Amino acid sequence: MAATTPHRIGRDDVVWSFGPDMEPVLEVEPGSIVTLETNDCFTGQIQTEADLVTEIDFERVNSATGPIAVRGAEPGDSLIVELLQVRPVERGFATLIPGIGQLIDKVQAPLTQVFRVEGETVHMNDRISFPLRPMVGVIGVATDGETLFNGFAGRHGGNLDNHLHGPGAKIYLPVRQPGGMLAIGDMHASMGDGEVCFTGVEIAGEVTLRVDLLKGKQGTWPVTELADRWVVHGTAGPDFMEALDRAVEEGARFLVEQWGFSIEEAFIFLSVACDANICQACRPQEFSTIARVSIPKISATPRPFS
Amino acid sequence: MAATTPHRIGRDDVVWSFGPDMEPVLEVEPGSIVTLETNDCFTGQIQTEADLVTEIDFERVNSATGPIAVRGAEPGDSLIVELLQVRPVERGFATLIPGIGQLIDKVQAPLTQVFRVEGETVHMNDRISFPLRPMVGVIGVATDGETLFNGFAGRHGGNLDNHLHGPGAKIYLPVRQPGGMLAIGDMHASMGDGEVCFTGVEIAGEVTLRVDLLKGKQGTWPVTELADRWVVHGTAGPDFMEALDRAVEEGARFLVEQWGFSIEEAFIFLSVACDANICQACRPQEFSTIARVSIPKISATPRPFS
Repeated sequence: MAATTPHRIGRDDVVWSFGPDMEPVLEVEPGSIVTLETNDCFTGQIQTEADLVTEIDFERVNSATGPIAVRGAEPGDSLIVELLQVRPVERGFATLIPGIGQLIDKVQAPLTQVFRVEGETVHMNDRISFPLRPMVGVIGVATDGETLFNGFAGRHGGNLDNHLHGPGAKIYLPVRQPGGMLAIGDMHASMGDGEVCFTGVEIAGEVTLRVDLLKGKQGTWPVTELADRWVVHGTAGPDFMEALDRAVEEGARFLVEQWGFSIEEAFIFLSVACDANICQACRPQEFSTIARVSIPKISATPRPFS
Repeated sequence: MAATTPHRIGRDDVVWSFGPDMEPVLEVEPGSIVTLETNDCFTGQIQTEADLVTEIDFERVNSATGPIAVRGAEPGDSLIVELLQVRPVERGFATLIPGIGQLIDKVQAPLTQVFRVEGETVHMNDRISFPLRPMVGVIGVATDGETLFNGFAGRHGGNLDNHLHGPGAKIYLPVRQPGGMLAIGDMHASMGDGEVCFTGVEIAGEVTLRVDLLKGKQGTWPVTELADRWVVHGTAGPDFMEALDRAVEEGARFLVEQWGFSIEEAFIFLSVACDANICQACRPQEFSTIARVSIPKISATPRPFS
């Protein structure tokens, strides 16, 4: 049955930007399961601690594997991407990049740090290990006009850098072009909220997902469903507070339009029961800042797009 | 035995600011258990939805019950405050305040919303209920010089508005004056990160805590211990990003000074494994902005102040 045939895309089928005109490398039925190989964000240009970020080709960063066209997806719909598995390889990298990040003036840079993934643990060195928290930084669809390099986030998704985009997350992506044109990359074995040195544990890997289609409903930005909450996003340029404003407005829009809150109820509920937080606020921020607002699943918020 | 005698302070013994010269209403031995009654942030001036925030006396907001002197506490030490119980009363309030909050231009204000607490649930109205998440917004000690109204946060604590300051949290407060002079107030039955309309579910209640003393060690700001992480803080004026910078610097200071990380290891670890987030970023922000950074408990971060 077409809807359940497993599909696979290799890590050479990538895009470097999201725009309005994207050619699919795979076309699938709603309900299909796809496994994607993803490159690390440096596309293999960093292999050891002797390889420095100042020496790489920045035209070849943040590749996203795809795009996948979903049959029947039309502007106004959502692609529902359920991340079934996010499996990093054994070795990842973080870098300190001259001029970038909250503490950059206090450190030696450039610098490359190698990490080793073993089971559920990420080893930084003999002394420092921490839990694996795999996620994808870049997930998006074709835009309605602009073309954005994968370093940027926007209404199409892109470099959302939301650490909650790991196994079990269900991401509703707003379709702006026929087929949607899903692409995914920039896996991290772990990334902290804020990503204050501008890298997580950057790593290649495989993502297995189920893609489905919701007709005639979408968010302004991608909306993420977890077991206990809905997560809306807002993106902006260098000013994180503008991203936060947008995410709060998007949360209010959902509460009012999807769940029947008055705008006053929405504002109060956002303040007393929802968590406004940071996905990406590294600075100086030359790409995007990204905020999220988590709305708890309660009886009044049964599902969005209702 | 003095160290385990239960003590009690009523809700009339309050302070409205933290400064260098504070007179204790209670003096206890390290190890003592104390129960404090706390006022809601409006000090009872709002009782029904007909009572509007524009009509109250703003000299009487954010009272903190105390201060408590801890015998033997000297500048350079930390008071360790373990929140054993945070018990709100049955009725709380949120308000929409003209000119304040991300969505204020879209709503009718002033407006008062009453909430009813029943067991583990907070009821907003017939349609909207959400989980109880009790915490204290104001917790602090005497300062080393400045006097700050309880609406502000600073290195002494004060209005930190960290929703993680609920039952089970252990807060290490930096002692700057003999006795420490602990005071606590501004309970919320629930408050979202960001507190975007500037109120949580503001409510009176009782706090039961154990206070202990750590000699000769302290953070720049209060440091909070949870079961799975250490939480450091940074506070600033209206610019939240400055608060975030300070919290990241405080996280690095702990990683380097307490746990032996190099500054490069600290910067990378903060980016890949620690979550930089928002306590308070309501705007326009006339009081303080507050950021936190959560550092996971791993073998390399066994306890601070080691």
